Amino acid sequence: MSTAWTSRYAARTKGITSSVIRDLLKITQRPGMISFAGGLPAPDVFPVQRFEEACRKVLAEQAALALQYGATEGYTPLRELLANNMARYGIKANVENVLITSGSQQALDLIGKLFINAGDRVLVEAPTYLGALQAFNVYGAEYVSVPSDDNGLCTDLLEQPLRSGPKFMYVLPNFQNPAGTTLSAGRRHDLILLADKYGIPIVEDDPYGQLRYEGEHLPSLVVLDHENVRRDSGYSIGNVIYLSTFSKTLAPGLRLGWIVAPPEVISKLAQLKQGADLHTSTFTQFVAYEVACDGFLDKHVKLIRQVYRERRDVMLQALQEFFPPAVTWTHPQGGLFLWVTLPEGVDIQALLKSAIEQNVAFVPGDSFYAPSRDVHNDVHNNDLQSHDVHNDDTREGSRHMRLNFSNATPEQIREGIRRLSEAVKTHLKAAKSRSEHPLEV
Amino acid sequence: MSTAWTSRYAARTKGITSSVIRDLLKITQRPGMISFAGGLPAPDVFPVQRFEEACRKVLAEQAALALQYGATEGYTPLRELLANNMARYGIKANVENVLITSGSQQALDLIGKLFINAGDRVLVEAPTYLGALQAFNVYGAEYVSVPSDDNGLCTDLLEQPLRSGPKFMYVLPNFQNPAGTTLSAGRRHDLILLADKYGIPIVEDDPYGQLRYEGEHLPSLVVLDHENVRRDSGYSIGNVIYLSTFSKTLAPGLRLGWIVAPPEVISKLAQLKQGADLHTSTFTQFVAYEVACDGFLDKHVKLIRQVYRERRDVMLQALQEFFPPAVTWTHPQGGLFLWVTLPEGVDIQALLKSAIEQNVAFVPGDSFYAPSRDVHNDVHNNDLQSHDVHNDDTREGSRHMRLNFSNATPEQIREGIRRLSEAVKTHLKAAKSRSEHPLEV
Repeated sequence: MSTAWTSRYAARTKGITSSVIRDLLKITQRPGMISFAGGLPAPDVFPVQRFEEACRKVLAEQAALALQYGATEGYTPLRELLANNMARYGIKANVENVLITSGSQQALDLIGKLFINAGDRVLVEAPTYLGALQAFNVYGAEYVSVPSDDNGLCTDLLEQPLRSGPKFMYVLPNFQNPAGTTLSAGRRHDLILLADKYGIPIVEDDPYGQLRYEGEHLPSLVVLDHENVRRDSGYSIGNVIYLSTFSKTLAPGLRLGWIVAPPEVISKLAQLKQGADLHTSTFTQFVAYEVACDGFLDKHVKLIRQVYRERRDVMLQALQEFFPPAVTWTHPQGGLFLWVTLPEGVDIQALLKSAIEQNVAFVPGDSFYAPSRDVHNDVHNNDLQSHDVHNDDTREGSRHMRLNFSNATPEQIREGIRRLSEAVKTHLKAAKSRSEHPLEV
Repeated sequence: MSTAWTSRYAARTKGITSSVIRDLLKITQRPGMISFAGGLPAPDVFPVQRFEEACRKVLAEQAALALQYGATEGYTPLRELLANNMARYGIKANVENVLITSGSQQALDLIGKLFINAGDRVLVEAPTYLGALQAFNVYGAEYVSVPSDDNGLCTDLLEQPLRSGPKFMYVLPNFQNPAGTTLSAGRRHDLILLADKYGIPIVEDDPYGQLRYEGEHLPSLVVLDHENVRRDSGYSIGNVIYLSTFSKTLAPGLRLGWIVAPPEVISKLAQLKQGADLHTSTFTQFVAYEVACDGFLDKHVKLIRQVYRERRDVMLQALQEFFPPAVTWTHPQGGLFLWVTLPEGVDIQALLKSAIEQNVAFVPGDSFYAPSRDVHNDVHNNDLQSHDVHNDDTREGSRHMRLNFSNATPEQIREGIRRLSEAVKTHLKAAKSRSEHPLEV
């Protein structure tokens, strides 16, 4: 079946497909399934009563404004509240530095729209957030991937990639999605100095920063940029664009995120947002303001930390107890995810299939690596070398599972990890047998 | 003040500026101002109590779903409700034909993203909806503008523009924004047959279709396409993509619109929507469903018709009473706008300035004409000819005012038109004097 439309797709949409994760979500909704695949908050921590009071108040006192069209930049009291809240984490933003977006996914889309010409490179971590790749792909981004380890992005490997002239670096310093790792204090400083040295700005994506379960808060890149580089420049928001969201602290169903950037960049982003959706729902902005105000947000974040810390600990404990010794995993200090590394040779797609048969789900790691679309245009490397890197990434990705620990209950987590360990053991055995009898494959 | 960012804007954002209307909105918020400039619904008709009940019900019974991430395509019961509601207007859509969007502005953005390669032409009415131009501009659209008159798009002028191969036609058949005109039944048939003959599909934007104050409902293009062309093809949604919204029937602050299209197009649009904002707020979708269900939407639309019909009549009456005879205007059968035509020679920007000084605002007509960016690539016309058309459009636009009659009260409308008539008379006199003494200019 085809229509006049299907032959008319724009070139930019070639190869755009649905995300593996969102497709997995459909499978994981079947009864009895324990899913570690999504990035869903626990519904148990939604502050439902507070939402109910907020809706009542907004509709009783401000319905004419809250249901009407609003400013593209967002509801001013909410922008103020966010500026004040961020100040407590050292981020010196004024109202005119803040643009409200329809979730931080829209922030990524607007940034792609504003900055990426087809063929432009974006420097990303390997692995990185799948949704950012989806947002940037449509604008024709190519990628320079830089490896990360337990301390986050390997900044000692950055100089050569920075010399290849990426448009910007896209980095998740806190409890990274998917790896669960945190960029160390030392590397944060190195990153800021390198960004300044090469004149390559940074998009800092920080959806989980407030959800730390152990260790000390580390300053955001946007703060360090100010302290180290921009101290005398007269403005506090410079070469780092900072993104965050209410999706993990209040509720993702609101679709409320925000961008912190220099005013002239906010103004350009707002012009693009006009064309994209006029503005984010005034109603959800008014409601979120009423929910978050008077210190509720901070109090609520403390509750979330407590609930998720327990779930993380249960998952770490269950992994220790059930998983074979050849398998390793990260120890996230916060956030929603951990990252499991399997021995070489496991067929990750077959493992996923077995896991789903046993009613437990995860996301295979290969989804989180940027495609090496720059292979043929790369003048700094020969094709073969880039090609090898590409293969490395794919092989590297196929050894990993992303596990989410925020959505399932502690009991489900324990049972899910037990089920998953059975599937893992079976496939480890198969991989071992294949490597011992390679001709039979 | 500049940063590493400001030198990095993508080529596509050149010339992207804030819409005149949204900038005007800031001015029109000052006290005492009577604004005919926006396209805002009357807050008096927001069904606030129904919203309050809906929020309470959703949070009491379905908070865990309504505050959580949701499907990109939208909340299924809402998509079903829309399919059923549209069926009453003859539109045979199934759930899989419906994609929920973050306002119908997002529908326009997604359509631009999916179909427009830089340099592609889009056939539009002259004048047309400014927001569509904003959405399409960023993807590098060029335009073929076809004049409209009191019966809407002049379909007798369509054949040559269609031969120039536009990617699609963008048409607002009902109570057009900005002109307030309605495409006649005969022209609807002609348009569908021409679209079929030349294989050029149609995007039908219908935000106001239910808000008819006189005359009989005319079938949508998507319905005629099925009846006339697609009768034996086995599918009911073919070469017309249909857009609508809750912004004018429930509340714009929800940011809820929808697209009706063939399933394979919906699937592609949903993939792009994933990258753009993951999905539209689940909370506003659940609330809108609860507000609209059980026949409330139809009942409420009847109330809105009654209120807006009165306001339209008051505006028409006041124009008749206060405006000089050299000025004419359209008689909209529905919707939110009428379109005033001034004699040649009036300086519309100076008129707007005078009007604002007298605390009344409108949108100058020139905002609603597509730029003739295709001048230099046009092989079917010589440059001079295209250039003349462009000049015609600009001159044509500068003779018009768009007036909104939904937002102000009847008393304000009468007083606003009286104030505006004073400004108009002053500037008519100035224009007359300039044309009699041209050397003094």
